[in-house]
Amino acid sequence: MMFGGIEAGGTKFVLAVADDNLKIVAREHLDTTQPEAMMPVIIDFFTQHPVTALGIGSFGPIGVNPQQADYGYIKKTPKPGWADYPFLPRLQDALNIPIYWTTDVNVAAYGEMLAGAAQGKKNLVYITVGTGIGAGIIADGQIYSGISHPEVGHLLMHTLPDDHFAGVCPYHQYCLEGIAAGPAIAARNGRPGRDITRDDPFWQVEAYYLAQACVDLTLTLAPEMIVFGGGVANQQQLMPLIRSSFITQLNGYVDTPPVDNYIVHAGLGNDAGIVGSLLLAKSLVAKTVNAPSV
Amino acid sequence: MMFGGIEAGGTKFVLAVADDNLKIVAREHLDTTQPEAMMPVIIDFFTQHPVTALGIGSFGPIGVNPQQADYGYIKKTPKPGWADYPFLPRLQDALNIPIYWTTDVNVAAYGEMLAGAAQGKKNLVYITVGTGIGAGIIADGQIYSGISHPEVGHLLMHTLPDDHFAGVCPYHQYCLEGIAAGPAIAARNGRPGRDITRDDPFWQVEAYYLAQACVDLTLTLAPEMIVFGGGVANQQQLMPLIRSSFITQLNGYVDTPPVDNYIVHAGLGNDAGIVGSLLLAKSLVAKTVNAPSV
Repeated sequence: MMFGGIEAGGTKFVLAVADDNLKIVAREHLDTTQPEAMMPVIIDFFTQHPVTALGIGSFGPIGVNPQQADYGYIKKTPKPGWADYPFLPRLQDALNIPIYWTTDVNVAAYGEMLAGAAQGKKNLVYITVGTGIGAGIIADGQIYSGISHPEVGHLLMHTLPDDHFAGVCPYHQYCLEGIAAGPAIAARNGRPGRDITRDDPFWQVEAYYLAQACVDLTLTLAPEMIVFGGGVANQQQLMPLIRSSFITQLNGYVDTPPVDNYIVHAGLGNDAGIVGSLLLAKSLVAKTVNAPSV
Repeated sequence: MMFGGIEAGGTKFVLAVADDNLKIVAREHLDTTQPEAMMPVIIDFFTQHPVTALGIGSFGPIGVNPQQADYGYIKKTPKPGWADYPFLPRLQDALNIPIYWTTDVNVAAYGEMLAGAAQGKKNLVYITVGTGIGAGIIADGQIYSGISHPEVGHLLMHTLPDDHFAGVCPYHQYCLEGIAAGPAIAARNGRPGRDITRDDPFWQVEAYYLAQACVDLTLTLAPEMIVFGGGVANQQQLMPLIRSSFITQLNGYVDTPPVDNYIVHAGLGNDAGIVGSLLLAKSLVAKTVNAPSV
């Protein structure tokens, strides 16, 4: 039995096929262009490498509620050709196999739970900090969804007393993504994060906001672990600063695991997404996840 | 078959017994004193009125994780006699029946879902705003819990530019409860909320923070409805201000139901807790909820 995965990112797609042991036997990377150009390539790939089930983690926002007409669609997005695009329906028509459809961060969270930093856990949050900020939530071993998927990148932040940077989000002042994602770092500092020295005091500001998101998510969800991925979060000097600020901001109000085991780097690195997609494909067949009832 | 409920509040307890149609046939109110005085009365009540199962919604923080040693305990609390008190174990020893044990806000959320403002919904948040602020979360029809119960009263708030009131919370500056619960209102205004006129501009400040909590919970949980209960939230002038501020602060970033149907008053009023407790007792027998595996 073979399983397929698609990590559909805003800049590139990863397609993969794996065997029953999740060993990847075929993999292809595509630049993210427009759907008319990409869909034939994707369908061709999974026609040449037939799979029993497919898992997709997509950039968003996407329709994840099977009760709504936009289920399986990419929703409003500035990416040419993708707004209101019926991504899942097109693939279902072409491939006619069970497909697990969710966000890129949810598949990464799922991958981290089963094969990454959060193995053995059943309640976790995976936060990616890069060009944007997003989170996937696992509750009791299942991907969490309300009437839509989480959008924690836009949590509204208490700002540091001397911080008057309102951020770059076109929707909100002082939201997490608007003041702490890659474009915000560049706007605030006049240069991208990779050009800022590790000991620059700016990283304490960055850590303060990421830690505050951890506090708010801890208070709301009480997870067993918070896993960080993405280019900004990979800056190694950040993690100790996030942990320290988290302790200060939460101030012991609720019990969490020891912070070094609670706020951690992704174990699968850049593979969390594609590994999670393949695991979801497999789990769909094994019925170990609650499949959306399409 | 008869069902029992206990709404264990910080100032009073409500005990009730209901028949299979959830018609209450016996009810008793007790002032919250110390456990040595109260437990014999509670046990006596349910000995005189035997029930098949019991639901308890307790003030907190409480241990709700069956994997942990403090499951069923009241945890740290300033209330004399209740800190580290084994509330559930004592009742289980005395009554020897199935007992559903959760927070006061979770039972209210459950009651609102099955018999109150959120009937037909499966994803909701119930927020009480009174002496403190707390929330119960229902996800896919079940009470949500991570490794502990939510504590959203302490979400950290973006503060209004002219608002320099850091709040009254001993743990955090600028947390929701610290700047928006009853004691904060009194400290900020020099008089309790009930003495502040309905058209006082203060209510817009109050609404801003409660609306911001709705924004953060919407972005994290994507519920179908947010239900407000509690003495402060019952101030009728607040609801339109909360709705209006919610629209401004979320700024259309994610789709929600129309705000008048999304942010609403509790349908069961002060009975949400005891009705929810009885419903949980009944559901435990009917196995329509995932019982904690004690």
